[in-house]
Amino acid sequence: MAEPAPFSDSFQHELDRLLRLRRDVRRFRTDPVDEATLDQALSAFSRAPSVGLSEPWRILRIDSPDARRAALDNFRAANDRALQGYTGARAARYATLKLSGMQEAPVQLAVFCDDGTTKGHGLGAASMPEMRRYSVVSAITLFWLALRAQGLGLGWVSILDPVQLARDLDAPDNWHLIGYFCIGWPQDTGDTPELETLGWETRAPALHIEPR
Amino acid sequence: MAEPAPFSDSFQHELDRLLRLRRDVRRFRTDPVDEATLDQALSAFSRAPSVGLSEPWRILRIDSPDARRAALDNFRAANDRALQGYTGARAARYATLKLSGMQEAPVQLAVFCDDGTTKGHGLGAASMPEMRRYSVVSAITLFWLALRAQGLGLGWVSILDPVQLARDLDAPDNWHLIGYFCIGWPQDTGDTPELETLGWETRAPALHIEPR
Repeated sequence: MAEPAPFSDSFQHELDRLLRLRRDVRRFRTDPVDEATLDQALSAFSRAPSVGLSEPWRILRIDSPDARRAALDNFRAANDRALQGYTGARAARYATLKLSGMQEAPVQLAVFCDDGTTKGHGLGAASMPEMRRYSVVSAITLFWLALRAQGLGLGWVSILDPVQLARDLDAPDNWHLIGYFCIGWPQDTGDTPELETLGWETRAPALHIEPR
Repeated sequence: MAEPAPFSDSFQHELDRLLRLRRDVRRFRTDPVDEATLDQALSAFSRAPSVGLSEPWRILRIDSPDARRAALDNFRAANDRALQGYTGARAARYATLKLSGMQEAPVQLAVFCDDGTTKGHGLGAASMPEMRRYSVVSAITLFWLALRAQGLGLGWVSILDPVQLARDLDAPDNWHLIGYFCIGWPQDTGDTPELETLGWETRAPALHIEPR
């Protein structure tokens, strides 16, 4: 087999730009996402690494008013509980954050890990069974990049009771919720995290690596 | 702020090629990796998403003979235990697989999640504390792409006792091992997973999405 062509310097430069512009989006425009664009990004799942080739990702597309309502109610309850964990100025700041785009995002997905899959024959997951869930996270990360490369935004909602949501969405028993994802055209497309802009937290200036 | 330039069709095509060529590498050439190339790829960590901007990734670079020996011994013991979970033809096939490049890879990293970090003030991790570990997995996934874009390969070793390895590497108490990573120049650069080539498992023909 012929050696694949190397990736050009300009590609690498653009890849770095993509990583810088990938953001967690909570402010979406309401115009629809066409299915071909979404399908192109979803193809990233089939390219993703998975332990033992287990491909344990399972995806529900949340379109019905009932399912969207269940997810939104779940988020609101979890967010109220989270707010109660803060006091003083930190609580006041938390209350001003917009932490999901669930009321606006045209496409919403609940993504699970099938903890009981036999695909992959357990390879690589005997001593670290969490590897299956990590495989789903890797796939979502690639999907996120593929969306952003087309100008779309993704928001990862984790302020949820994952067991309750799986039940409300009638997910099979072995499915463990990894996250709830809002997808659409972002209102803003900058390279600064909103949590930084709003003063919640800053990014570390440098990566620290210790020798062993 | 000016709207960032969109990503070109040719970039998107090359991005898809990168996703197709990203492989889990277990067969490395032994020539060294220069530090500037490695640093460029490591910058992907600083671009990665993390829950609440917690940036919980912690990295140990495993260079000393003692630390490498501890990691290799750990892998071998876990691999022997995993082999005992198979019987017949599946066991015979398992025994022929090369499941790590720990004896050859010039760069080796142990990557942890600091479960006790206060950075991010717990945002997004109250009901799903596993989000911190997922953030580390996302960062590793981006690092993997950045390596491959430069022609380097990464192999994710999960056939390990993670608690024992953290102890052997003298990691702080709150650090939870996410994975052990072998990095170097790959012997092969194709787009087919070795587990598929060797008949362990095949990739699913299509992604299935259920409506709710």
